[in-house]
Amino acid sequence: MDNWLKKQALLSGDKLAVTDGTNNLTFAELNQRATQIAGQLNSLGLLQNERIALLTNNTLAGYLTAMAILTAGHTIVWLNRRLSTAELNYQLTDSQVDFCLFEPGLETTGLLVKTVSLTDLFAAPVTQNTLQAEFKETEPASIMYTSGTTGRPKGVVQTFGNHLNSALASALNMGVSPADEWLCTVPIFHISGFSIMMRGLIYGMTVRLVEHFDAREIHKILVEEPITMISVVPYMLKKLLRLKDDTKAAYNQRFQGMLLGGGPIDRSTLELCEQLKIPVVQSYGMTETCSQIIALSFADAANHIGSSGKPLFLTQLRIASKTSEIQVKTPALTPGYLGQPAKYTAKITPDGWFKTGDVGHLDEDGFLYVDGRSDDMIISGGENIFPDEIESVYADCDQLEEMAVIGIDDELWEQKPIAFIVSKSNELSAQALLDYGRARLAHYKVPRTFYVLDHLPYNASGKLQRYKLHELLASKTPVQQLK
Amino acid sequence: MDNWLKKQALLSGDKLAVTDGTNNLTFAELNQRATQIAGQLNSLGLLQNERIALLTNNTLAGYLTAMAILTAGHTIVWLNRRLSTAELNYQLTDSQVDFCLFEPGLETTGLLVKTVSLTDLFAAPVTQNTLQAEFKETEPASIMYTSGTTGRPKGVVQTFGNHLNSALASALNMGVSPADEWLCTVPIFHISGFSIMMRGLIYGMTVRLVEHFDAREIHKILVEEPITMISVVPYMLKKLLRLKDDTKAAYNQRFQGMLLGGGPIDRSTLELCEQLKIPVVQSYGMTETCSQIIALSFADAANHIGSSGKPLFLTQLRIASKTSEIQVKTPALTPGYLGQPAKYTAKITPDGWFKTGDVGHLDEDGFLYVDGRSDDMIISGGENIFPDEIESVYADCDQLEEMAVIGIDDELWEQKPIAFIVSKSNELSAQALLDYGRARLAHYKVPRTFYVLDHLPYNASGKLQRYKLHELLASKTPVQQLK
Repeated sequence: MDNWLKKQALLSGDKLAVTDGTNNLTFAELNQRATQIAGQLNSLGLLQNERIALLTNNTLAGYLTAMAILTAGHTIVWLNRRLSTAELNYQLTDSQVDFCLFEPGLETTGLLVKTVSLTDLFAAPVTQNTLQAEFKETEPASIMYTSGTTGRPKGVVQTFGNHLNSALASALNMGVSPADEWLCTVPIFHISGFSIMMRGLIYGMTVRLVEHFDAREIHKILVEEPITMISVVPYMLKKLLRLKDDTKAAYNQRFQGMLLGGGPIDRSTLELCEQLKIPVVQSYGMTETCSQIIALSFADAANHIGSSGKPLFLTQLRIASKTSEIQVKTPALTPGYLGQPAKYTAKITPDGWFKTGDVGHLDEDGFLYVDGRSDDMIISGGENIFPDEIESVYADCDQLEEMAVIGIDDELWEQKPIAFIVSKSNELSAQALLDYGRARLAHYKVPRTFYVLDHLPYNASGKLQRYKLHELLASKTPVQQLK
Repeated sequence: MDNWLKKQALLSGDKLAVTDGTNNLTFAELNQRATQIAGQLNSLGLLQNERIALLTNNTLAGYLTAMAILTAGHTIVWLNRRLSTAELNYQLTDSQVDFCLFEPGLETTGLLVKTVSLTDLFAAPVTQNTLQAEFKETEPASIMYTSGTTGRPKGVVQTFGNHLNSALASALNMGVSPADEWLCTVPIFHISGFSIMMRGLIYGMTVRLVEHFDAREIHKILVEEPITMISVVPYMLKKLLRLKDDTKAAYNQRFQGMLLGGGPIDRSTLELCEQLKIPVVQSYGMTETCSQIIALSFADAANHIGSSGKPLFLTQLRIASKTSEIQVKTPALTPGYLGQPAKYTAKITPDGWFKTGDVGHLDEDGFLYVDGRSDDMIISGGENIFPDEIESVYADCDQLEEMAVIGIDDELWEQKPIAFIVSKSNELSAQALLDYGRARLAHYKVPRTFYVLDHLPYNASGKLQRYKLHELLASKTPVQQLK
């Protein structure tokens, strides 16, 4: 394939490639600037096929630098700006990078590799550009560390072919038109954000960058700018819905809908979407599959509450017969974890399917329901229990801030569910929570024990770290039990 | 990949897959019917991985049968209904098929293989269905014989991967939306028509089949039905424009445009398109590349009259430095000619580019202009002359029905152009044609000799067979020379 950036400079040179609302770059300008920065990377000694770590917010400078890394034939190692120094150093060491580029303001002391600010990079001399004439399907474009709710993070290799197939499958599912403009407020160092950049490059589509999610600002952009799509996670969706409901302001005429990742939505949220005429495509995917591989159209949503949808055109899906694990085949699947072939092999079945680690089921129309992580599944008296289900029922309990459920060994039932809670009320009792659960759940699913915490343990990506709750119980640290 | 038909039955089961204006089939129904026919093919003894010849018009019966052949894991050998018995027998023998399925009315006597009418096929018992669970990128879906203006036709193998990549590249170029409906009046036994069927299957899009091109009927359909796209060749475009101009009837609201194959359009036609607000995407491609690989957007057309456009996202293009031959790389490229590996190898350069056999040039903005077939190129006094250019200039000459130009050896100039004409007038003189040419062309391009024929030699696909004109001159047959 031709180098995608040069290709879009040829095909869509005059078209807006990226904007942060103030500064605009056409594809021709983006190509010209990225080419220059590629030459500046050269002058730092980064000659060919290097891995380069990048620590940035959703800024134009970061966007340009990512494009320069790709067009120069290097691989981006995306770093999460919320990580601690120790976590960053683990990823920098694991990916064997020599350089970490950082956006001014995100400087971190104590990193084990040479750091260069984007300001310094952009001021460097431009030496000869050794641009990639071609992008090869099998070559790595990016490496992204999975957030790892258990164990150490793994570097997921994402090839140009993975990104291409992901973008094409998304186009077949949601449609694509030359007038599309995608708002990117999810982080570009996550696949949710980076996949928007790649779609921009592959479709010749405008990307509207926003640095931080501020609901009022996003709402205003959706009203005033020609945005057609936005990617959101559930909390963003809910905030935007609330604002839309309050203000009654219409989004711009071109607006087509929202792509939702991070779990299905509940009936009341869906009803609000319908009432406010905001089509939401729910989706399921992961870093290993270069974003969504399963999607639920808005038309199907009402009759399949809780479903993640159907496999996209290029994705094959099956539910393993004994374990009920969700397994997929897709050309968007990573070819491996950096330097950890055994961990990758362990995720592939003998007949070539990728084991997602999620457990799920299909309804009779072929819609997928994700029940939970297989690692989190609790088997109690022969019944499968998923913490997600219990937590989502308790999410509507007014006196609770939040809840996390894990399974512990039990003599009688083999395992049983127990809960960690963050309470909103001093008067909350274990009996009240038991009663609440028994009114809404099968009795074997209701936690018998509730531990009180100030906050639940989350990792930098906002994923709950259940293994820390297991560690907490196993440790000598006293934990307050709700009475 | 999943079997595409089963996949669309899952993803778009209730959606209209194909209609001939009277009979409609949803994707679920298409899948059900094709599955049944696959079982009927079984009962004829066609078990697995067979090549099956199909002789059909653009009818629902032919469409269903083609889908059944694919879903059962066989390969379609598409036959052109305009071929003579001898030509059909050549292709049937060359492709080693055992069966030729034919639509009632297209029966041909004297075929060397077993023939089965679709009526008989549809009445056959249904034996066990051995459907393909998966379509593999590298497996042949179809074989199409190139019309071969010189030599014997070659069977072009088109894999599922070729069709997929062609459809995806087209989607990126023209956009794709769930509401699309493509009108197919170009023959499904040509890649122009079959590629519409495949897009239908890949996009989950409705295909509107029309058996014969009748301008009034097509015009009426474009006005009354929710057609978004139609593929046309130049004569169809011109007839439709004339009707639109005469009637002033508006096409349906969803109408988006026409995809034009078969050569660029002239300025006056383009101006009429603009005036009538009919966007036309011009394109360049061939059977070997599974339809278009180069396209000219409507927005660019006015400033690049005569251009075929720019290479689609998945296509790479170069002009060979010495020969000016157009060479391409594309994932839609055939893996070979059936049983003729040497002919295929001869078309691939040592560094892996496909030699189209066309000569062309790029303008400074990267737009491609196809100058003509390299086989047809005439070198006269060191200048390159393309018959196409001369013929298109004479196409506007009122007294001529048509003209074909070839080069013959010349002592002084090495080669010189001469013309075969079909005249509209008894009073036409060689001097008048010389004068006409000299007023419009460089003198070295003007044919000095004009031979009169009743009609020019065309093959079944409507392509001029210049080699027959060379043969005619070389033979002892007297040819009348215009005075």
